[in-house]
Amino acid sequence: MKRARVAIVGATGYTGSELVRLLSEHPHAEIGAITSRSRAGEPFSAVHGAFRRLADQVLVQADALPSREIDLLFLALPHGTSMDFVAAQPTDGPPIIDLSGDFRLPDPAAYTEWYGAEHRAKDRLEEAVFGLPELFRDQVRDAKLVSNPGCYPTCAILALAPLLRRGLVRPSGIIVDAKSGVTGAGASVKASTHFPDVFGDFRAYKLVRHRHTPEIESALSRVAGTDVQVLFTPHLLPVDRGILATCYAEPTGEADTDSLRAAYREDYADEPFVRLVEEPPSIKQVRGSNYCDVQVTYDPRTRRVLALATIDNLVKGAAGQAIQNMNLLFGWPETTGLTQGPLTP
Amino acid sequence: MKRARVAIVGATGYTGSELVRLLSEHPHAEIGAITSRSRAGEPFSAVHGAFRRLADQVLVQADALPSREIDLLFLALPHGTSMDFVAAQPTDGPPIIDLSGDFRLPDPAAYTEWYGAEHRAKDRLEEAVFGLPELFRDQVRDAKLVSNPGCYPTCAILALAPLLRRGLVRPSGIIVDAKSGVTGAGASVKASTHFPDVFGDFRAYKLVRHRHTPEIESALSRVAGTDVQVLFTPHLLPVDRGILATCYAEPTGEADTDSLRAAYREDYADEPFVRLVEEPPSIKQVRGSNYCDVQVTYDPRTRRVLALATIDNLVKGAAGQAIQNMNLLFGWPETTGLTQGPLTP
Amino acid sequence: MKRARVAIVGATGYTGSELVRLLSEHPHAEIGAITSRSRAGEPFSAVHGAFRRLADQVLVQADALPSREIDLLFLALPHGTSMDFVAAQPTDGPPIIDLSGDFRLPDPAAYTEWYGAEHRAKDRLEEAVFGLPELFRDQVRDAKLVSNPGCYPTCAILALAPLLRRGLVRPSGIIVDAKSGVTGAGASVKASTHFPDVFGDFRAYKLVRHRHTPEIESALSRVAGTDVQVLFTPHLLPVDRGILATCYAEPTGEADTDSLRAAYREDYADEPFVRLVEEPPSIKQVRGSNYCDVQVTYDPRTRRVLALATIDNLVKGAAGQAIQNMNLLFGWPETTGLTQGPLTP
Amino acid sequence: MKRARVAIVGATGYTGSELVRLLSEHPHAEIGAITSRSRAGEPFSAVHGAFRRLADQVLVQADALPSREIDLLFLALPHGTSMDFVAAQPTDGPPIIDLSGDFRLPDPAAYTEWYGAEHRAKDRLEEAVFGLPELFRDQVRDAKLVSNPGCYPTCAILALAPLLRRGLVRPSGIIVDAKSGVTGAGASVKASTHFPDVFGDFRAYKLVRHRHTPEIESALSRVAGTDVQVLFTPHLLPVDRGILATCYAEPTGEADTDSLRAAYREDYADEPFVRLVEEPPSIKQVRGSNYCDVQVTYDPRTRRVLALATIDNLVKGAAGQAIQNMNLLFGWPETTGLTQGPLTP
Repeated sequence: MKRARVAIVGATGYTGSELVRLLSEHPHAEIGAITSRSRAGEPFSAVHGAFRRLADQVLVQADALPSREIDLLFLALPHGTSMDFVAAQPTDGPPIIDLSGDFRLPDPAAYTEWYGAEHRAKDRLEEAVFGLPELFRDQVRDAKLVSNPGCYPTCAILALAPLLRRGLVRPSGIIVDAKSGVTGAGASVKASTHFPDVFGDFRAYKLVRHRHTPEIESALSRVAGTDVQVLFTPHLLPVDRGILATCYAEPTGEADTDSLRAAYREDYADEPFVRLVEEPPSIKQVRGSNYCDVQVTYDPRTRRVLALATIDNLVKGAAGQAIQNMNLLFGWPETTGLTQGPLTP
Repeated sequence: MKRARVAIVGATGYTGSELVRLLSEHPHAEIGAITSRSRAGEPFSAVHGAFRRLADQVLVQADALPSREIDLLFLALPHGTSMDFVAAQPTDGPPIIDLSGDFRLPDPAAYTEWYGAEHRAKDRLEEAVFGLPELFRDQVRDAKLVSNPGCYPTCAILALAPLLRRGLVRPSGIIVDAKSGVTGAGASVKASTHFPDVFGDFRAYKLVRHRHTPEIESALSRVAGTDVQVLFTPHLLPVDRGILATCYAEPTGEADTDSLRAAYREDYADEPFVRLVEEPPSIKQVRGSNYCDVQVTYDPRTRRVLALATIDNLVKGAAGQAIQNMNLLFGWPETTGLTQGPLTP
Repeated sequence: MKRARVAIVGATGYTGSELVRLLSEHPHAEIGAITSRSRAGEPFSAVHGAFRRLADQVLVQADALPSREIDLLFLALPHGTSMDFVAAQPTDGPPIIDLSGDFRLPDPAAYTEWYGAEHRAKDRLEEAVFGLPELFRDQVRDAKLVSNPGCYPTCAILALAPLLRRGLVRPSGIIVDAKSGVTGAGASVKASTHFPDVFGDFRAYKLVRHRHTPEIESALSRVAGTDVQVLFTPHLLPVDRGILATCYAEPTGEADTDSLRAAYREDYADEPFVRLVEEPPSIKQVRGSNYCDVQVTYDPRTRRVLALATIDNLVKGAAGQAIQNMNLLFGWPETTGLTQGPLTP
Repeated sequence: MKRARVAIVGATGYTGSELVRLLSEHPHAEIGAITSRSRAGEPFSAVHGAFRRLADQVLVQADALPSREIDLLFLALPHGTSMDFVAAQPTDGPPIIDLSGDFRLPDPAAYTEWYGAEHRAKDRLEEAVFGLPELFRDQVRDAKLVSNPGCYPTCAILALAPLLRRGLVRPSGIIVDAKSGVTGAGASVKASTHFPDVFGDFRAYKLVRHRHTPEIESALSRVAGTDVQVLFTPHLLPVDRGILATCYAEPTGEADTDSLRAAYREDYADEPFVRLVEEPPSIKQVRGSNYCDVQVTYDPRTRRVLALATIDNLVKGAAGQAIQNMNLLFGWPETTGLTQGPLTP
């Protein structure tokens, strides 16, 4: 089989380096180019030292991309930059998988509200497909522009979707108390990620106003067929990778743990990357892998459903899911290149 | 002033060593004896190496306690063992501050339900005072038996009390999503605290059945004057010390952040150890100190109140609070010996 | 190509689970059986939860191994147990790669001295090959019994070998100051690996008497053609994986950094898993991979050579190297199944 | 007793905040002023949130210091800035304890060589006393300008001084392999202290050229009465606080562990902050305290002496030692305000 040539646009962040890590093992894809505005001319491994010998190719400017020879573009750019890049692409160009937040909210007004800026690629936004394969697999197959979900949303949506699809819980009053490792904050150096302050610490941040809120609500609303509202609270875990979402919802009728688990088993029976677990899921048991571990349980005392899920934010929450989407786009088996087990302990 | 002589019963755990750390700096108390069943005859510092030179006194068997010369007993014993020890004490003995869970639930039936054993000191249970000074200060002053609150309950109750006291939130449907450092699991070696498995990991545990649930409910019910029900979810944080409780409740009427904060300021105005903060509280900013940092905020979008609090589980959540209770019992200023600032970074 | 069927003897430790992780990705090998004395009858993933779905096969007792159908045995057993297992195998059985320390010291008297027990498989010891491919590749190809090197020795020997092979440093007075993540202490729960004590801590252990000392000396002596003596000091790093060895040696003649680096480049030119670096190597840049990063430098002021190396103790220091040895034994390209990049950050 | 009023010049770093933490507990000193160039006008606790309520005083510009009313100045300024500040002070001003590196090397030429700049306060340099009380206590008592030692030097010098004072080891060929928590790199945000990169990592840095090298040599040379040369290798430990120095030296004559320990006991018999230990010292067992734990041992096999020491780099390695020096200057008992035990676990 001729290998597909893919380009990674934006190389200095963690989603960029994680794409390189995973694509290096992919049997049908090869990296045709990696771009960087600030580090063009240097080898990729000069930016990410761990990749010495594995990925020494020289970074190029985005405008020097050999577009004719590229079969797919992964955009690992900051919010804002990404939509401008997309807007500048020819419509008959190769398909795009965008890992930024720019195309995740179908409604441009929501973008303005939560991102604080006008959307600058509204026509492309209309055709963008939300790339969560477990929910929207069929649409991804035919997409020209896949918007790769955020890390928190991937975790929270997979935890809650079966409940909302079946109307088992009320669509409001849902709590998503989520905790993420620090790579979720990106590779840029900032005060909030200074090691001596984060080590041994734990705290919430961006209470009631994190941008992943409308993304979770938008996807779950489509699943539920009605407006879903969640209160989403992110916390910064003093680890590098991993997200745990602990979700609470109120059942609409009678409930018990066994029937909830049966519903999840039915919904996720054929999902290669969702593992249903009966003990609280652990972020380390998915580290480095594309798995999402999910547990659901019921508390008859307080009449609440608990749904917990864990992912590696850089894999199922970013680069791994992007490759899963690429596999769908190219018609390859969905697990291709994503079979690496968790790195644990 | 003649110094009070106190005894610490049970030396091998972390509450024992933390009591020694804090009492070493207390101007009015001195450690008369420290007991240990398994390590009697050895210096305290042979068990806790960090205390070399600071606390080299020899551990004695509990039955060798010089009771006549002891003015107060701190019990740092496991659940179950503690109530047997209390039952065996003469009623005219020195006051007792018990750090176990044995005397925290006023109703012995609740003890049986959550601890899985019959309570064996019911008469002493009746007189036990729940030693959370911010709520029950006056009763502590006259107590013969103070039951020192659990770590999670201290944090959750201080986060939620102003809301429930004033009827600002509904007494059911409350979520306490709490995260604790590993010292909360004790000094005994166990599989769940093996370093390679906990490092880089994060997970919930004991869903819907943790023993601190009825303790939180019992104290908040007294505050509210009505039955309060909480869904409490503990998580294991990969750090040594610190608890963050993220609490969610539904307002009974109109609400906004400003008026909620005003209520908290009023309730906690004179509390030396409660600090109201306007950014999400951090566990490291209370590390090693007796502070409890509390933030309350309102989400008008989802109509939910968020109350967050952090403590050091071994200080305000155990040994520090025990000393605060001792200060009350002896009529000393409540902050005596507890003025050490947080160790941060 | 028909896949080779391998068996893993001993499943509960970290070398066992790491072998499963890596073999799952190997194109030419499949796991025919995994044994466990204590957990036989349970699925592998019941012991190592992260491997749910990836490795759910049922563990068997070692004496139930289908030996006829097994092409190679990996022994992931404790010291002592391993030599008894080997002694009980038929001499015409499948080749064995032993990951314990039992066959690493050619001289049985050294075994007695450092392991405190008589060697119980001396005839097999004679034929055992020290499986460090970078030094003894040719012998491994024809071996019946490969003794997989220890984690510290792998790191220290690869750091120092070029210096000793060429007589560039004196064979005595060599210091190996090494630091290892806690997985090096194994999966068994013990006081020294209790999370609250190790978190935020760092200390040396087993000063001047660690069993890896004679293993380092033995291999380097063969390389040097003369007796080499090292002072080896292990330290416990509060991380899960990774070893850094910082080595000091006295040059025999004139020295400078450039010529030292040239020597290393020459020796390691064709080594797929040794990466020469010019900045101090990092354990995270090899995490999860089979790489060994090596730096050499010279201090003209004090006239000392510094050689630093990092590995992942569970990969190049254990399971990865074992698979590298399997590849040699079966005549496959040495990197087969070992091309996964480092998991970083 | 009238309290001494001290000023802290430079408030945004960790040595500044640690001085505040410790001085808050000092019975004879009070903080008269804290300065900051960049944050003047804000409360100290706005910079260091953990100090809310403990230290809310407003920061002032250094030129607004009420010098008449200040009895002592602690300088917590960067290298270079500090000597300019000292040069500008009147010679009859209050005594100064400088925590920067500017006055640690008696020879201005050494300053130029290792700091890459001309010394700009040479006359004050001449009178500066190296404030390591265990070695130079008598000179500190009468000093006008105390140069507080660096963190690594404090640890290494205390580990090695008894050996060199008595001529027990050769003054060259000494190795100091040291490991420090990340607070040693300061409070300023930089790429090398980005949490995701440091977490789970470990590496050496500044091989053979760290500025603490001449500081260690200078102090040990004075102790030895001859030129001492050390090869110093710093490593970055993924923890917040703590230094372990593992030192290697060659004995000049016969040696054994018992007699070495006897020498250390003799030298450190009356030292309140040096604890001799017989097991490898632990950084967590000194965390937050002014202790330095020291172990010496001998390896008869390789004929080398090992001396290991641990400190908290921000306490005995910075602020605690500065207060110890203040106590000496003012004639107070040396342990005043420094009796807090280690925070452990």
